[in-house]
Amino acid sequence: MSTWSRVEKLEPAECLTLLSSVRLGRVGWSGPDGQQVIPVNHTVLDGKVMFRTNLYSALADGTREGVVAFEADELDDRMQSGWSVLAVGPSEHVEDRDEMRDVFRRLGEPWAPGDRTLIARITPEQLTGRRFLRR
Amino acid sequence: MSTWSRVEKLEPAECLTLLSSVRLGRVGWSGPDGQQVIPVNHTVLDGKVMFRTNLYSALADGTREGVVAFEADELDDRMQSGWSVLAVGPSEHVEDRDEMRDVFRRLGEPWAPGDRTLIARITPEQLTGRRFLRR
Repeated sequence: MSTWSRVEKLEPAECLTLLSSVRLGRVGWSGPDGQQVIPVNHTVLDGKVMFRTNLYSALADGTREGVVAFEADELDDRMQSGWSVLAVGPSEHVEDRDEMRDVFRRLGEPWAPGDRTLIARITPEQLTGRRFLRR
Repeated sequence: MSTWSRVEKLEPAECLTLLSSVRLGRVGWSGPDGQQVIPVNHTVLDGKVMFRTNLYSALADGTREGVVAFEADELDDRMQSGWSVLAVGPSEHVEDRDEMRDVFRRLGEPWAPGDRTLIARITPEQLTGRRFLRR
């Protein structure tokens, strides 16, 4: 974005590697209160972006079905270096208990069967990214 | 979000102060390619979120009209401490040259009259935020 940086487009495979390399990203969706973007801790499992949400949250409603966006980045304050990746695709909730347990383990969080939590899973259909380089 | 953090809701005035305290945020909107979330350098001017975009970009199209989301945060890797703010509201492009020059100055970027750039301005109608505190 900055006039002082060079910008390179990233291939989908590299985008997925970068998404997997960080723990924090932002989910974007269109809900009853309009556009929403909120941060989540995520993990990548079999090429899909997985994150925890609470049963009764706007995020849970927003990720139950339909297409959502997931963005992660590592950028310096002035966007002169770093990268940004955007994954867009359908979202759903994971219901399999073994898969839920696996995701909680990857997130480094304990999971008790009684927890009122859900795991959302985004299947990226578009995977685009940019690397910002100092000139 | 984490089971180990306490979460506090933030008042709109504090949300705006926090948005003003950082230079990097993410814009979310719904475009022809579905949901989008991309990082931008922003500034806050008279309670409005302003950022640069390029004339022919998807971001320019997405911020020309309609309601968009703008999110900024300062969070540790595991979302155990920090804050996140979400502003949702109508977006438009700034056409006044003095205002454009002012925004470029605040962004720390030079502005030449011939630049093929636009400034988008989001007027927050919903301003919500959360602070994450370690227990």
